[in-house]
Amino acid sequence: MGRQVTETRDRYGHFLTIPTRWMDNDIYGHVNNTVYYSYFDTVVNTYLVQAGGFDFQRSQVIGVAVETFCRFHRSVAYPDEIHAGLRVGKLGNSSVRYEIGIFRAGDDEAAASGHFVHVFVERSTNKPVPIPGALRTALARLLIHS
Amino acid sequence: MGRQVTETRDRYGHFLTIPTRWMDNDIYGHVNNTVYYSYFDTVVNTYLVQAGGFDFQRSQVIGVAVETFCRFHRSVAYPDEIHAGLRVGKLGNSSVRYEIGIFRAGDDEAAASGHFVHVFVERSTNKPVPIPGALRTALARLLIHS
Amino acid sequence: MGRQVTETRDRYGHFLTIPTRWMDNDIYGHVNNTVYYSYFDTVVNTYLVQAGGFDFQRSQVIGVAVETFCRFHRSVAYPDEIHAGLRVGKLGNSSVRYEIGIFRAGDDEAAASGHFVHVFVERSTNKPVPIPGALRTALARLLIHS
Amino acid sequence: MGRQVTETRDRYGHFLTIPTRWMDNDIYGHVNNTVYYSYFDTVVNTYLVQAGGFDFQRSQVIGVAVETFCRFHRSVAYPDEIHAGLRVGKLGNSSVRYEIGIFRAGDDEAAASGHFVHVFVERSTNKPVPIPGALRTALARLLIHS
Repeated sequence: MGRQVTETRDRYGHFLTIPTRWMDNDIYGHVNNTVYYSYFDTVVNTYLVQAGGFDFQRSQVIGVAVETFCRFHRSVAYPDEIHAGLRVGKLGNSSVRYEIGIFRAGDDEAAASGHFVHVFVERSTNKPVPIPGALRTALARLLIHS
Repeated sequence: MGRQVTETRDRYGHFLTIPTRWMDNDIYGHVNNTVYYSYFDTVVNTYLVQAGGFDFQRSQVIGVAVETFCRFHRSVAYPDEIHAGLRVGKLGNSSVRYEIGIFRAGDDEAAASGHFVHVFVERSTNKPVPIPGALRTALARLLIHS
Repeated sequence: MGRQVTETRDRYGHFLTIPTRWMDNDIYGHVNNTVYYSYFDTVVNTYLVQAGGFDFQRSQVIGVAVETFCRFHRSVAYPDEIHAGLRVGKLGNSSVRYEIGIFRAGDDEAAASGHFVHVFVERSTNKPVPIPGALRTALARLLIHS
Repeated sequence: MGRQVTETRDRYGHFLTIPTRWMDNDIYGHVNNTVYYSYFDTVVNTYLVQAGGFDFQRSQVIGVAVETFCRFHRSVAYPDEIHAGLRVGKLGNSSVRYEIGIFRAGDDEAAASGHFVHVFVERSTNKPVPIPGALRTALARLLIHS
């Protein structure tokens, strides 16, 4: 899968603290792989709400997930506290690629890292539309320059 | 269903802050009823770990849920922040009845309230055993006197 | 906690088969207590959809959970298959009390049993309204006579 | 992201039926992206248990997720029934790449498709070990030849 950059905190422009929950652990005693994606969902949508004024209950335009990916580097377990780092890897006309790092409190290297691609669509028709201005402005602030 | 006391914050001796997650909301736009029980689980087990030194990964004695109940007074929705209040309603030889109030940040009246009964059992045999001393001491601190 | 009737299959008028999922198990190797309520939610809503023609995406009237309860008699674990039994304990003007038994495939005694109270409200105002006729007819078929 | 093959049912050697649950839907009325990974987890582990005799509660060797990916082609929603297709894309010494297609009942094209990489490790040390023989035999039956 090509070169692997070590994902450290300085590579992310925004962070959200997410405490783990009892049910996040699976039978092996670690956070189950599916739960990392709920951390992804939460850091992404919370940023859209808080930085971009996104009103997911009523907005005509919503973000639909078209692709998600996660690589697991080391385990995390309840009752750990998680810091979810967020940056924007690519900002298109109607789509955005978020890149996320999941850090255990106190660690500088990510326990897991991945991406999440949103396409913005009109809620009623499900057709792609340009990303609304306020969201675009908020997302552009997290865009990486490589 | 008998008298209903208004559950306010002063009726709980311990609180845990739990941010909601995107997936907590169901199709009606509010936290789904099942998710409140994951808040219950989390405030209870986190208290056992932090106040009672409970090591759920290795301890010979574990708590098994035998009964849970929740009444929903008003709705909560992501991205609300939740404060989960905890008290002990009854502390038996091998069982404990936790009483939990779920408060939206800023509210003094509980959005939901309920109880959760743990029986402590030997992990290998599943037989009830007396609550270990360190846990009992921690639980006794939250016991209500009525 | 009062008298306890043994909950056997003959006490339920409708059943839904629900396979367990890997994530249903928690760290102790059994289905977590919160997950039983997702079985409750699923058997109830699936019955409303299939027997009562309930269209939860568009209907003006929706069911809101006001109270749920579960008692855990014996454990269930992935990869068990579950049979969720449903009956109606009380059918009011705008509310209904469902009673649910969770059976492991092959068992006649419930592994868990409990109840779930729905109040039907107008989606836009959240005000209680009479249960729509098609739903009432479907629910009346499961009403117990005691 | 390279060429995209249309994922049809004939490309998978094993299927598991998974009914959706009420809580699988998120606020937009479709199965949330995180939930697809719980379908992945379930089809994979159920195959290991049923075809390979895997005893995840006691076995010395367990499978740990190191990478997961999913692309979402069209939406699925409760109460749809899902057929999860499974094949093995690569079978290494200690790792296996599962490829999974999520089909709505009645559809021949996948609603979502992705992969999941397990590394088998010794439970006590977390060190990679060769895939045990019975599991390897079961996995080899699903290996694609391309």
